[in-house]
Amino acid sequence: MKDYITADEWSIVEDGFHAKYNRITESIMSIGNGMMGQRANFEEHFSGDTFQGSYVAGIYYPDKTRVGWWKNGYPEYFAKVLNSANFIGIDVYLGNRRLDLNQMEIIDFRRELNMKEGYLERTFKAKFSDGLVVNVRSKRFCSMVDDETAAIAYTITPENYTGTITCFPSIDFDVLNEDSNYDEQFWEEVSRDVADVRGYVCSRTKKLDFHVCAGMHVEALKNSTKLNLTDLPSSQQKAFVELMVEENLEPGDSFTIHKYAAVVASTNYDKDTLPKVCHDRLDTIAQKGFLTMLAEQNDAWAAKWQLGDIKIDGDVKAQQGIRFNIFQLNQTYTGKDKRLNIGPKGFTGEKYGGSTYWDTEAYCLPFYLATAAREVSRNLLIYRHNHLQKAIENAEKLGFSGGAALYPMVTMNGEECHNEWEITFEEIHRNGAIAYAIFDYIRYTGDQSYMAEYGLDVLIAISRFWSQRVNFSEDKQKFVMLGVTGPNEYENNVNNNWYTNYIAQWCMMYTIASISEVKANDPASYSRIVSSNKLVESETAHWQHIIDNMYFPEDAQRGVFLQQDGFLDKELIPVAELDPIHLPLNQKWSWDRILRSCYIKQADVLQGLYFFEDQFDEDTHRRNFDFYEPMTVHESSLSPCVHVILAAKLGYEEKAYEMYLRTARLDLDDYNNDTEDGCHTTSMAGTWMSVTKGFGGMRVDNEGQLHFSPMIPQQWDSYSFKIFFRTTGIEVITTKDKVVVKHLSGPSVDLFIYEEKMTLEEGGSLACNRS
Amino acid sequence: MKDYITADEWSIVEDGFHAKYNRITESIMSIGNGMMGQRANFEEHFSGDTFQGSYVAGIYYPDKTRVGWWKNGYPEYFAKVLNSANFIGIDVYLGNRRLDLNQMEIIDFRRELNMKEGYLERTFKAKFSDGLVVNVRSKRFCSMVDDETAAIAYTITPENYTGTITCFPSIDFDVLNEDSNYDEQFWEEVSRDVADVRGYVCSRTKKLDFHVCAGMHVEALKNSTKLNLTDLPSSQQKAFVELMVEENLEPGDSFTIHKYAAVVASTNYDKDTLPKVCHDRLDTIAQKGFLTMLAEQNDAWAAKWQLGDIKIDGDVKAQQGIRFNIFQLNQTYTGKDKRLNIGPKGFTGEKYGGSTYWDTEAYCLPFYLATAAREVSRNLLIYRHNHLQKAIENAEKLGFSGGAALYPMVTMNGEECHNEWEITFEEIHRNGAIAYAIFDYIRYTGDQSYMAEYGLDVLIAISRFWSQRVNFSEDKQKFVMLGVTGPNEYENNVNNNWYTNYIAQWCMMYTIASISEVKANDPASYSRIVSSNKLVESETAHWQHIIDNMYFPEDAQRGVFLQQDGFLDKELIPVAELDPIHLPLNQKWSWDRILRSCYIKQADVLQGLYFFEDQFDEDTHRRNFDFYEPMTVHESSLSPCVHVILAAKLGYEEKAYEMYLRTARLDLDDYNNDTEDGCHTTSMAGTWMSVTKGFGGMRVDNEGQLHFSPMIPQQWDSYSFKIFFRTTGIEVITTKDKVVVKHLSGPSVDLFIYEEKMTLEEGGSLACNRS
Repeated sequence: MKDYITADEWSIVEDGFHAKYNRITESIMSIGNGMMGQRANFEEHFSGDTFQGSYVAGIYYPDKTRVGWWKNGYPEYFAKVLNSANFIGIDVYLGNRRLDLNQMEIIDFRRELNMKEGYLERTFKAKFSDGLVVNVRSKRFCSMVDDETAAIAYTITPENYTGTITCFPSIDFDVLNEDSNYDEQFWEEVSRDVADVRGYVCSRTKKLDFHVCAGMHVEALKNSTKLNLTDLPSSQQKAFVELMVEENLEPGDSFTIHKYAAVVASTNYDKDTLPKVCHDRLDTIAQKGFLTMLAEQNDAWAAKWQLGDIKIDGDVKAQQGIRFNIFQLNQTYTGKDKRLNIGPKGFTGEKYGGSTYWDTEAYCLPFYLATAAREVSRNLLIYRHNHLQKAIENAEKLGFSGGAALYPMVTMNGEECHNEWEITFEEIHRNGAIAYAIFDYIRYTGDQSYMAEYGLDVLIAISRFWSQRVNFSEDKQKFVMLGVTGPNEYENNVNNNWYTNYIAQWCMMYTIASISEVKANDPASYSRIVSSNKLVESETAHWQHIIDNMYFPEDAQRGVFLQQDGFLDKELIPVAELDPIHLPLNQKWSWDRILRSCYIKQADVLQGLYFFEDQFDEDTHRRNFDFYEPMTVHESSLSPCVHVILAAKLGYEEKAYEMYLRTARLDLDDYNNDTEDGCHTTSMAGTWMSVTKGFGGMRVDNEGQLHFSPMIPQQWDSYSFKIFFRTTGIEVITTKDKVVVKHLSGPSVDLFIYEEKMTLEEGGSLACNRS
Repeated sequence: MKDYITADEWSIVEDGFHAKYNRITESIMSIGNGMMGQRANFEEHFSGDTFQGSYVAGIYYPDKTRVGWWKNGYPEYFAKVLNSANFIGIDVYLGNRRLDLNQMEIIDFRRELNMKEGYLERTFKAKFSDGLVVNVRSKRFCSMVDDETAAIAYTITPENYTGTITCFPSIDFDVLNEDSNYDEQFWEEVSRDVADVRGYVCSRTKKLDFHVCAGMHVEALKNSTKLNLTDLPSSQQKAFVELMVEENLEPGDSFTIHKYAAVVASTNYDKDTLPKVCHDRLDTIAQKGFLTMLAEQNDAWAAKWQLGDIKIDGDVKAQQGIRFNIFQLNQTYTGKDKRLNIGPKGFTGEKYGGSTYWDTEAYCLPFYLATAAREVSRNLLIYRHNHLQKAIENAEKLGFSGGAALYPMVTMNGEECHNEWEITFEEIHRNGAIAYAIFDYIRYTGDQSYMAEYGLDVLIAISRFWSQRVNFSEDKQKFVMLGVTGPNEYENNVNNNWYTNYIAQWCMMYTIASISEVKANDPASYSRIVSSNKLVESETAHWQHIIDNMYFPEDAQRGVFLQQDGFLDKELIPVAELDPIHLPLNQKWSWDRILRSCYIKQADVLQGLYFFEDQFDEDTHRRNFDFYEPMTVHESSLSPCVHVILAAKLGYEEKAYEMYLRTARLDLDDYNNDTEDGCHTTSMAGTWMSVTKGFGGMRVDNEGQLHFSPMIPQQWDSYSFKIFFRTTGIEVITTKDKVVVKHLSGPSVDLFIYEEKMTLEEGGSLACNRS
């Protein structure tokens, strides 16, 4: 755990340069706008340790699979998030001195991600070896308004220097992925040009033929007065263009470069038009100018915060943590484009690759349901409907048939691109989360039409998969599911993982019920679905037979569900009794030792209790939580949030708060020693859930009714969050002794506070004592 | 399965060139002498498909591990068998026509591995595009007498040509491994020289600094008359030297190159002396001359066959198969050097890497026990004793302590170099085989001294491992062993694999018994062992406690041992009921589907019954065989032999014969479609066991008494095998109705035929009717 980020309610601040944490800071302070994003790299040359990254949504590379031992069924490639054109570069010389913080004495340094207004700012004062002192201020952002553009204002103020300053703003498309499997260059140049105050490079990916064009437009100001730049000197080489801006300065003069950047991709335009589109975008933003763009950016973020802010009083670190999570989520996915999804690292790094895990459905959907337009969540669901045929093909590859679908563990385009057999082929509960998201979406939004239009196709294909994936055990006289990996990836290839068996059974039940409902209420759609899916009655009858005879491992004596067959053969020793030198297990223990231990990476049985809460009484919840949580090491970023929600429900306030800090500040404090690779973007939605569903006790029940049962950690004075529930905007404010629910917009709504039914009138508010 | 090899009792013959099988033929016809070996590549240039390979015993490379996802505990490298200097090359030109079978019309072609005399011969007649016809005969061998040398006689006889013939004999050390993880060049040149009729190249491996020096000495003959060659023209480049021999020919003239080669390594000599040692070896063999060397080679092989031949009458393919297996084993390991072991592909390919698997102990040892000097087997055992410290370190890396040892799955120098977690960390039964080999060796040889001298150190360390690897299950009130992979690698990470639990328990029992025996009979050694191993009484008491409370999964109803917990949850469908389109499973099914199926790759429970035969009555054998064999797909080369032995014992003659053919002709008929990578060398010893222990019913019981109970497959007229039992040479001849056991050498011996005790007198023989 690190502790170098300054606590602040609205900003992430690094005071003083922490060179050895630079990769971490670069991850944390990444900026993006849903269409593109980049790590918080420096604009000027930096010879120290850095991890350069600029990413464009939906642009990826099928990197040839690298494994030690090939297993049948492995995909041929792993879809890598692609490092794309670096458009921030501004190489700066004072005379022949090159600005490079790694070679200078740093007198002051501050880097700030301003989350309120949506920009990254860096100021520093540094001294060259000959005593020349220079002040620099850079501010940049990826525009939320013109989402194919970005802008940088870079100001240099030498203190004791008379002479020329020379700046080289550039577009550099000669970039590599650090995690390339075979040190391959993924891009090749298509065209480039540099003239007047502009330059661009277009490149294509060597496979899949994605084209990206990145361009720049340069302005310069001396002491805030715009200079009349034309026909700047330039140079170019393969996949690289730069302009040169030169000026003479006296001590105290300031010199500013405004660099406007546009990045456009063949996913949205005809390849051949990209340079033109790029120039058009540059026209638009250069005309607006930096300050107008910045003002628009502030407004756009204000609107985001207006909808989705969470306020915490009395605990700055907790406040900073939650805003950081909300900010990064909004930077990563805006829901405008249904071909996109929420990558595991957003635009903050390249590790893990792929863009879509079960994280989207299990952890991210609730955030977007409550804080964004319904279309956003719907698009997340339709994304999987669009991939249904690929999921069916994936299942066929593994020996399933008849329209059974296995959604991939990781994907970019619907095809599986993961290659660890114990995950790729066995962590099949992901199919359940995709079905659950349909249920969750309809329950929250009331959008019943989704089921007939899209939902059932997916549910039928998933139920078909489960019905083939189980087999009848003569020995148990029950249906069993062999060889799976549950959410707890510290177990591999187990039999009868309770969570997987449960969600499989639930999927089939939900599918049968949904078929009945559509049949009753929408016969035309029913006929279409039956026909297009070639659904026959004997099929659902077989599902029902499986549902009625599904096996679930239990420990009757303890009254807990068993994570899997044989779990009780392990030595059951709580994490608390383990010498801390063994933690984290994933760094200290060999894999086999982890596997045969009782230790749990993330909620497994408890994930099921979280999803299907109302199917189990509170004692069952408590017994299972008390049994499993003490053996849980929370070494997945997705673990703490579920435990906050369950602990809060059970009244375990301390545990809830402990888990909350772990999820909210996971990246800020680098809990898992891996933030340098990028942020844990998908788990950030879990942090949001920790506050709303956890402390706020927010639920939507199966009848679509909204509930709140807030508690408040003793470290906090008060907290509040805003949600959209269907078309009503609501704010929930919880203090030590009161809960106030305020109407913000839309129609009145019935809701429950501490299980007491009330009506929230338009413009009204409800107040209760905290119970 | 392929069927292009001509059946022959003593030779492997390819009649006509089978270009598409060339890699297979190159594997099968590999030659070697225990010190070095090579694939049956062509001497002259060949532009067609070929897999070039020359190997030197004990020379390897630690190739950096390549995995998709790193697991804690993986070794940093995989020890690769190293492709070394190619010394066979003779590039031939007639005028400006380059001899290259891939560019010529082949009129006749024959390649023969003569196993009786130990050489590889190739003859062909081929036509250049201009109509010139040439006859070639090449014969070569790796000398069993001067085992750092080889010799080639290469004769060209043009039919319709007048003009110059130019030959370029070369040493080429600019070689690659096809299976290099990162396309790395493993060698770098140290020195080279070429002068008069000789040339050499010395290279070193970039890691570990192994040096190898390969040299040649060239003679030429015209129409069998030796030419007086001196100061041949030469050329050289990096890691390559060649000489030029030129002669004018008339039609019908024959021109012969004798190429003498020597390969010496820093494993045996000081690096700096290698060129000199190489020249000394060349002096020796050039002085002997090709024909003398060949005569010595014939004699050496005659002696080998004298000891270890198996004759089968009435079934040429079976005869060819068994001799092929014996021949390859003798080429691979001679037992002269206790640093060496029996690589999985011998000198026939580079795949799998490493030199030592549990195959050595479980499958190869019995062959060397019965057909070679006692020293050979003893050296195989001492090899593991020498690696004990590394095995202890390996176990420490995985969290074990107190001198517990886990021997590696694959090794070159005692360090683990395998990297699939389910094998590397979990296929731990290998430890059991290493202990069993000590038992097997002492039982067969009567060499009790081995136990105190070496055996107990290894047994104690192995028992320590088992005692830590089990854990007490509160649920079962027994010791269990979680997360293992048994011999059947079509199951991974299972709990309570019966075989592993059984051999673990047996190891601890055998260790305790052996400690007692040494204590009673050799108190001095006992004290030394107790002290050097820091053995305390409480430790053996704890082992005994585990022995007494070990858990074994069983199916009481069927009366069979269960391969592992939960085995009965599978769908138990015999292989015979599976549509053959699904076979082989390892090519047709995804890994998860294989894992959750009931299908068995190789003997698992049955491996235990084979090892510990006398612990179980025949009904138990039969019930388990009848239960498991029908679910066994034999997709490991190590599978059929154990089933021959068990089937023969149970009187399942057809099954025994079916399995025998599968093991004996595995490579000759390319059953598993992978002989192109090299031969399955270790399983060849299993073929030998199939005849002796299987059909011959040979056993040595726990009292060290020899037994035979021969059966004969109906396809055979008779068969015979020779063994050494302690110091007595014995031949067992079985016909349809008789068994004759003949004394060959050494003292008289008591033995059992069909469980009737008899005495085989010196010079005598025993005859019984077949029962």
